[in-house]
Amino acid sequence: MKAVRLHAYHRQPVVEEVPEPTASGPFDVVVKIGGAGVCRTDLHIIEEQWAEKSGVTLPYTIGHENAGWVHEVGPAVSNVAVGDTVILHPTPTCGLCHACRAGDDMHCTDSTFPGINTDGGMAEYLRTSARACIKLDPATKPEDVAALADAGITAYHAVRKAVPLLFPGTVCVVNGAGGLGHIGIQSLKAMTAATVVVVDRNAEALELATTLGADHTVLADGKQVESVLDLTGGNGAEVVLDFVAEQGAQQDAFAMTRRAGSHFVIGYGSNIDIPTIDIISTERNVVGNLVGTYNDLVELMVLAQAGKVTLHTRKYPLDDALDALADLDAGRVRGRAILTP
Amino acid sequence: MKAVRLHAYHRQPVVEEVPEPTASGPFDVVVKIGGAGVCRTDLHIIEEQWAEKSGVTLPYTIGHENAGWVHEVGPAVSNVAVGDTVILHPTPTCGLCHACRAGDDMHCTDSTFPGINTDGGMAEYLRTSARACIKLDPATKPEDVAALADAGITAYHAVRKAVPLLFPGTVCVVNGAGGLGHIGIQSLKAMTAATVVVVDRNAEALELATTLGADHTVLADGKQVESVLDLTGGNGAEVVLDFVAEQGAQQDAFAMTRRAGSHFVIGYGSNIDIPTIDIISTERNVVGNLVGTYNDLVELMVLAQAGKVTLHTRKYPLDDALDALADLDAGRVRGRAILTP
Amino acid sequence: MKAVRLHAYHRQPVVEEVPEPTASGPFDVVVKIGGAGVCRTDLHIIEEQWAEKSGVTLPYTIGHENAGWVHEVGPAVSNVAVGDTVILHPTPTCGLCHACRAGDDMHCTDSTFPGINTDGGMAEYLRTSARACIKLDPATKPEDVAALADAGITAYHAVRKAVPLLFPGTVCVVNGAGGLGHIGIQSLKAMTAATVVVVDRNAEALELATTLGADHTVLADGKQVESVLDLTGGNGAEVVLDFVAEQGAQQDAFAMTRRAGSHFVIGYGSNIDIPTIDIISTERNVVGNLVGTYNDLVELMVLAQAGKVTLHTRKYPLDDALDALADLDAGRVRGRAILTP
Amino acid sequence: MKAVRLHAYHRQPVVEEVPEPTASGPFDVVVKIGGAGVCRTDLHIIEEQWAEKSGVTLPYTIGHENAGWVHEVGPAVSNVAVGDTVILHPTPTCGLCHACRAGDDMHCTDSTFPGINTDGGMAEYLRTSARACIKLDPATKPEDVAALADAGITAYHAVRKAVPLLFPGTVCVVNGAGGLGHIGIQSLKAMTAATVVVVDRNAEALELATTLGADHTVLADGKQVESVLDLTGGNGAEVVLDFVAEQGAQQDAFAMTRRAGSHFVIGYGSNIDIPTIDIISTERNVVGNLVGTYNDLVELMVLAQAGKVTLHTRKYPLDDALDALADLDAGRVRGRAILTP
Repeated sequence: MKAVRLHAYHRQPVVEEVPEPTASGPFDVVVKIGGAGVCRTDLHIIEEQWAEKSGVTLPYTIGHENAGWVHEVGPAVSNVAVGDTVILHPTPTCGLCHACRAGDDMHCTDSTFPGINTDGGMAEYLRTSARACIKLDPATKPEDVAALADAGITAYHAVRKAVPLLFPGTVCVVNGAGGLGHIGIQSLKAMTAATVVVVDRNAEALELATTLGADHTVLADGKQVESVLDLTGGNGAEVVLDFVAEQGAQQDAFAMTRRAGSHFVIGYGSNIDIPTIDIISTERNVVGNLVGTYNDLVELMVLAQAGKVTLHTRKYPLDDALDALADLDAGRVRGRAILTP
Repeated sequence: MKAVRLHAYHRQPVVEEVPEPTASGPFDVVVKIGGAGVCRTDLHIIEEQWAEKSGVTLPYTIGHENAGWVHEVGPAVSNVAVGDTVILHPTPTCGLCHACRAGDDMHCTDSTFPGINTDGGMAEYLRTSARACIKLDPATKPEDVAALADAGITAYHAVRKAVPLLFPGTVCVVNGAGGLGHIGIQSLKAMTAATVVVVDRNAEALELATTLGADHTVLADGKQVESVLDLTGGNGAEVVLDFVAEQGAQQDAFAMTRRAGSHFVIGYGSNIDIPTIDIISTERNVVGNLVGTYNDLVELMVLAQAGKVTLHTRKYPLDDALDALADLDAGRVRGRAILTP
Repeated sequence: MKAVRLHAYHRQPVVEEVPEPTASGPFDVVVKIGGAGVCRTDLHIIEEQWAEKSGVTLPYTIGHENAGWVHEVGPAVSNVAVGDTVILHPTPTCGLCHACRAGDDMHCTDSTFPGINTDGGMAEYLRTSARACIKLDPATKPEDVAALADAGITAYHAVRKAVPLLFPGTVCVVNGAGGLGHIGIQSLKAMTAATVVVVDRNAEALELATTLGADHTVLADGKQVESVLDLTGGNGAEVVLDFVAEQGAQQDAFAMTRRAGSHFVIGYGSNIDIPTIDIISTERNVVGNLVGTYNDLVELMVLAQAGKVTLHTRKYPLDDALDALADLDAGRVRGRAILTP
Repeated sequence: MKAVRLHAYHRQPVVEEVPEPTASGPFDVVVKIGGAGVCRTDLHIIEEQWAEKSGVTLPYTIGHENAGWVHEVGPAVSNVAVGDTVILHPTPTCGLCHACRAGDDMHCTDSTFPGINTDGGMAEYLRTSARACIKLDPATKPEDVAALADAGITAYHAVRKAVPLLFPGTVCVVNGAGGLGHIGIQSLKAMTAATVVVVDRNAEALELATTLGADHTVLADGKQVESVLDLTGGNGAEVVLDFVAEQGAQQDAFAMTRRAGSHFVIGYGSNIDIPTIDIISTERNVVGNLVGTYNDLVELMVLAQAGKVTLHTRKYPLDDALDALADLDAGRVRGRAILTP
């Protein structure tokens, strides 16, 4: 089958032929990929940012945002059958550790992360496990929902954690209105009555944000912290969802929070550097966020199927994967790029 | 009356005569001071660290950790009467803003902080408000409990916020076993079944920690992060209560947290500097903590009166305030220094 | 001034002349009433249901749902001034007890409840306290918002408590679509993505519910429990907000909850009677709800001013108070009846 | 093998020979029983209280509180091996439904409950699943810990849910100091600083309660509600853990709660019958509790291995199972009766 394989860091992946995976273990599920999202993390992988953390051996197939149809199942699989339309939670988990037993999938002590530390879904087929599969209405087109499997769940997870902080009268800043941010905005509108302020350096992204329900937009022109403070009576926002967290945006995001507020770090790339006296004298928090739980993805699919979260995607054939990566890197993608069979 | 007054930053305060305060407003309460705690923040005030944040005009009287007896009350005061023994919440609040109405005293939009931004309690008398007073059993000696009014409430507040994270089987690191830390250890033992690991660079402080119930102690000899990881199977602790947060201790504290864990910043002095990829790839949090609520202090007094939290104090007459500050600065105080009338 | 006074239980109140109240205490606020809501509780008061609990001495003025303009203030009042437009939290509280300090206004140990246990607002003027006043935009007409002061806050408070239970994919039943229920529906739509199922025995009320965003409506024709189970795959709802809780509706409401679900009791009138084996074998809860906090009302005003909660009211001059009570009792009021000056 | 089998309701079970179970499914685990607890629910099963809810076909083997050693495992089992010492979560769960994925084991949509609706552990061997096994230190004697598998987890689960309500200064009533109650008392002392008041009609049980840390004991002599109100300044308790919930105890338990308090129903047998006006005018809650989660049992084993929860048991050989049931029924068992091989 065809797959997008990374052979060396700081060089482009190649689309090449590799053997198809098989359902060799009792819970294995092989999925025929119908849609595979292209993510900024794929660029970061190529840039070697994840090399040490993932420990992956090159070459391997990237792609950690996948949906498709069940192609083959292992002998102990009971929750899906061949032919089912599925979206895939990104980390097949053990189901037995304390984290799994508490529903914290991302903290499973014995999971894999296809596309990060083992072969992923920018390919014709992907091997995952029964525990990662969410069965969908057979009418669903995988390419239309694939972006929910990583961008979507990550944005949703952060919003879900922020909901208790966002009662009526509060303000939530969405820092970055790209692939994740535009799902974050819709999730906020669906689940809270907070005022949503969207910050981005791209005017077109802000226009999309407005159509998705943003109450205010702020162009990141160097005065974005001041603008957010002005919009909030000088106080800042109860919650800042920072989908950028690099190149100074992370410092701005913290500066936009109000007393007792929380800066949710979701993007990454640079360091956050704060005087501890600023943390304690205002009792502000920096909150880590990592993808989301299986149930988060189930819930997000409910929002999607109710039309409360819609995706803005641009489709590319699998063979054009490198074009998709290049467009993303150059800032030419609004919403999310999706590879299709 | 006598008062400890700061006339210039980077110079020692002086003990001098000033007029007694009076209960001029309807809710004013003048308290005859029975015990005034000496805090590392007093040193930081002298070092000018709080000058910009507090905006205080010099000279003024320091001392933000006070207990005593009600001496005079304004006409609208109904909750305490002259002669009552009281411990004082450090910030007289408005009672009317959203934060006050939610019980978040420290985030009142119209409060003062005696000893920080107005005259404090290192004096014979202090003016505060009815809302700051907690009435105590008349048998209580103010000098025995004063340290609970700031060191105590601050440690307790952080522990109280951490309790939901500290179910049986979890580990809590107490970073720093000084004035606040030793109250933190006791609060943890009273309210959780977590394993308590105490880190300090002073062996004597660790001995005290053991007598207070610490399950493990770690000497901060440069290998403290490694030692904590060893004690936790390589994982780190669910919660690190960082009572130091300066001179590198804040970096160690974050490094001691496990996946999905939380670093509670309580001390201050240096910057915390973390790659955002480390925050998101492990979903860890940095949690700000600022003194505590009025109800926190009420609850802590319950623990104290039940003997579950006991204070280690060293008493100095008000006239010897400068000796107390010098001893604290030189690391010669175990527990808390208290000025007495 | 004119006031609606109850002289004897089981007899109609009378509209008669009484002296105007004055701001005799330091925090007293006298409000010129612009709108006073008529509530089912007023009928229950007349029926003597509250006599023992309130301990009120007859005759007195009823009316516990009020908005208007500040007419006179006591000497210590700082948060409102004569002429301000205000809506009133129903219980003037002490601000000093543990409940007040935790934001739980309804559990204040030293509050009054005008209209329940002291003179209320079906009159030209009402005496309340500074702590009960929420200042509004001067353009607001008190008669348009008065119903939020009790019906609104009560519905909102229950919804606010239920929000954490109502993630996407869950179902919330609104049992009773009258004065409170129609605010509950709008609050649910504003703050959650749950599926809202409305049950009422009045077809017209269900039509209103649909226009307010109800996802499904169920006529309470004797088969309502069965209908709700059918709508939920036989499982029942995660949350049932029971705005009726009398004449069997309370038994139905519990029967509509699913495993691990919660029956929020908001209305009242009959007994709830459940085998404890049913409670434990499904781990279901019965949750009490009592009016709401000051901050609840502040937040609800945010929703109202954003147009997310709109009231359906019918206005009556104060002189026609008895007609309003009669219409309510006969089920002739859709939404809420409001007395105006 | 020998097993305690129920052949007909309202008649005693019989100890008889049946075939040994085998690990026929991929996740099956057959456990050699080392200790099987005898529970009041076994009496209720015989009395036919569970017949309709469980739908079990007679005859079958009772016993739902089990520990032992792994005897045989199915081919897909990876978390335990033959010879391991294990305690068993009472409900083998599917691991795939929303409840399992959220950690709510008791609400799994596809679980069994050995001893309730399929063959249980009053036998030489029991078939369960890999997901139910918690591996223990090999030095642990199963007969010493078996009672934690149902009585223990049930008491712990309720306490764990109550912890956030039980800050210092609050009161928790333990209604019933039998098999569950004595674990509840110890869990409360380990995890909270609340004042613990124990109510029982047996003076000997109250003596045991005192040695386990009860702060106050109240003999249930008909004046127990009055006594609890007296002990709490007339207010009642923030939490009442009702381990009885039958024969009027459930009405007393609700009457012992204070405003905004919660009555945790854990025992069962009679109806709870409350005027809804009493629920809403004080905003009190009735909270269902059903066994506990897998993680609850893991956490409880931490407390047990730290010596913070110790069991009071009386051992009977499996052959004397009927004596154990008779002693329990007659109130002759302090703590818990355990069958041993």
